[in-house]
Amino acid sequence: MPLIVQKYGGTSVGSLDRIRNVAARVKRTRDQGNQVVAVVSAMSGVTDGLIKMAKDLAGSPSEREMDVLMATGEQQSIALVSMALQEMGVDAASITGRQAGIITSGSHTRGRIEKIDPAMMKQMLDEGKSLVVAGFQGITPEGMIHTLGRGGSDLTAIAVAAALKADVCQILTDVDGVYTCDPRVVKNARKLPEISYDEMLEMASSGSKVMQSRSVEFAKKFGVVFEVRSSLNDHPGTLVLEEHPHMENVVIRGISIERSQARLTITGIPDAPGMSGLILGALADAEINLDMIISNIANDGFARHSFTMHSSDLGKAQAALKRVLTDLAPNSKIETEAGIAKLSVVGIGMRSHSGVAATMFKALGNADINIGMISTSEIKIAVTVDEMRIEDAARSVHDAFELHKAPA
Amino acid sequence: MPLIVQKYGGTSVGSLDRIRNVAARVKRTRDQGNQVVAVVSAMSGVTDGLIKMAKDLAGSPSEREMDVLMATGEQQSIALVSMALQEMGVDAASITGRQAGIITSGSHTRGRIEKIDPAMMKQMLDEGKSLVVAGFQGITPEGMIHTLGRGGSDLTAIAVAAALKADVCQILTDVDGVYTCDPRVVKNARKLPEISYDEMLEMASSGSKVMQSRSVEFAKKFGVVFEVRSSLNDHPGTLVLEEHPHMENVVIRGISIERSQARLTITGIPDAPGMSGLILGALADAEINLDMIISNIANDGFARHSFTMHSSDLGKAQAALKRVLTDLAPNSKIETEAGIAKLSVVGIGMRSHSGVAATMFKALGNADINIGMISTSEIKIAVTVDEMRIEDAARSVHDAFELHKAPA
Repeated sequence: MPLIVQKYGGTSVGSLDRIRNVAARVKRTRDQGNQVVAVVSAMSGVTDGLIKMAKDLAGSPSEREMDVLMATGEQQSIALVSMALQEMGVDAASITGRQAGIITSGSHTRGRIEKIDPAMMKQMLDEGKSLVVAGFQGITPEGMIHTLGRGGSDLTAIAVAAALKADVCQILTDVDGVYTCDPRVVKNARKLPEISYDEMLEMASSGSKVMQSRSVEFAKKFGVVFEVRSSLNDHPGTLVLEEHPHMENVVIRGISIERSQARLTITGIPDAPGMSGLILGALADAEINLDMIISNIANDGFARHSFTMHSSDLGKAQAALKRVLTDLAPNSKIETEAGIAKLSVVGIGMRSHSGVAATMFKALGNADINIGMISTSEIKIAVTVDEMRIEDAARSVHDAFELHKAPA
Repeated sequence: MPLIVQKYGGTSVGSLDRIRNVAARVKRTRDQGNQVVAVVSAMSGVTDGLIKMAKDLAGSPSEREMDVLMATGEQQSIALVSMALQEMGVDAASITGRQAGIITSGSHTRGRIEKIDPAMMKQMLDEGKSLVVAGFQGITPEGMIHTLGRGGSDLTAIAVAAALKADVCQILTDVDGVYTCDPRVVKNARKLPEISYDEMLEMASSGSKVMQSRSVEFAKKFGVVFEVRSSLNDHPGTLVLEEHPHMENVVIRGISIERSQARLTITGIPDAPGMSGLILGALADAEINLDMIISNIANDGFARHSFTMHSSDLGKAQAALKRVLTDLAPNSKIETEAGIAKLSVVGIGMRSHSGVAATMFKALGNADINIGMISTSEIKIAVTVDEMRIEDAARSVHDAFELHKAPA
């Protein structure tokens, strides 16, 4: 019998009625002749309530205890979803992260899945049960409760699918799948029937909110084919899988946009060995996530570095740089620009097709949109533009590559 | 360093302010030079909310899933109390039932503690931590989550105290200790400095609400001395311990009363072997908890059985008996009386003092109170009286034994 892993997020189980809907979908999947393992998140309201209590008791609550507290959210969900299933006549059983054999490493609230011992799940599946597994949680080898951080339930679903050698892993969410661009921005954006892991990773890291990178990386590493689809309807979603030759016929798979970006440029830095390392080190110590990094030597012989980051990090970055530059480069200057956005075109076809950048820049030029910084990878070209123009930019590039048309 | 186990019930951790109070008391105990292990229940409101959700989803939710759900209540409490302690500068860590090594047997929602492997607790105590242990929960040998039913957190505290060989086990509750009688009924009731396990068991099984019998039995079995005291003040409470010779000098330790009792009498039963077994079996199958059982042969040569039970069980008992008596004893009659109450006097001194019954019955007679049924054990005499007169009965017996006076 085929084994399907389904992941339901916090919104999907956010009320008792929604829990009944989840149970009904699990039952339907089972009635169609499948074994089902549902991975569920905490009810969205529950999580918020727990965080509020913790913040009330302690300014910065210990991360170990936050893990113990937050893990109760998923434990409640699995019990409630199991009860709803049983009420519908389905032989169901809840499984905590520990019972699922999910062993983690890393620091509290940001665990990584190291391995899964699926013995208990396998035994219960053999007994004919449908399983409801707690997402987002595991235990350390020492037996401490551990949560997996943002997107943790997706990670659980993919890891469980890998451990159980599931036939399908469905990530059920509030979008219908992965689109050529955000359909709220580009009206004729098209749902992709499939996308490669690498393209999905580039989309995720350049602003697409569908999934966290590390879940996709985990799926790629263990060869788990998964489908992103809606929990609200039965439309087919988007399959995410290893690339196959036919995929390269498409030059650009999709476009992602990321708003609220900022640029920080430092000029007047002596062109000496080790300077870049000290500057980047200072930003890393301040826990600034840099996105684009561009360095060159200006006409005056001094080095010039430009970085992009989320605009909320700009103040922290400036402060960290001032501390280090006062000694290192007293004549340097910091210049910042907020209110920019990033547009990325992504596609493995770029490897074998030329002219992508030319098409993209021409489209932006025709739309009278200035390009700021540019960065590229083997399968991505990203540019910054004025945040006010990001939607126009997305539409003009989407049109230029004719992404609304299904490829032949 | 002395090790103190403290148990805090659901009311004591019923709000964030109360959680802070619990943390402050734990810190005070620690600052006095003790190692502390706090066993806590779920926040009272949380438990109610969870039950409500379960009942909404399923008419009779599976007990396995109820255990998974309810156990989250204590898990939240331990995290929150630990956070509050840490905020006060105490090095604290939460411990789930599983981490405390509490292995259980029995059916779901009514687990029994079989053994405790305190390795993790010991290691953390050695590291100088104060521990906050989840009451009411453990795991089965197969790794399933198990709750312990009513009074389960008391049981956890006593079992943990036994496993860690604690110097003191304090059951912190909303009463100041064990009294010679309920102080709401007998104004000059006196708090007992100490009481033996056997007396405490008789008090518990005859209506005293302070603790469940099985926690006292567990303490007796493992020789855990515990103290019942208030979580609201620092007054000394009542020590519960193995009897020592000096204790026998007190004839009566205390009086307990139990309201809402009912009597059921069956007359006209043929005096044949096995009849009593069939009748009691029918009541047991109907899950009726009988209290007093009195059987004799009436003048007519037929047997007559009288039972007391909680009045809410009376209807169920009558129905069960009718089914069995229609065949067995078609001429039998069932007679019932609700609105009665039970008064018990308890004391190990009874073993070596005579005249207890005489003093008791004389006091009741002087107060013009009729005695219904009578039952006795080695250390208890119980009588039923009209429920309307139970408070008068308690006061007159309390006076007759001069229980308001501390023994010499």
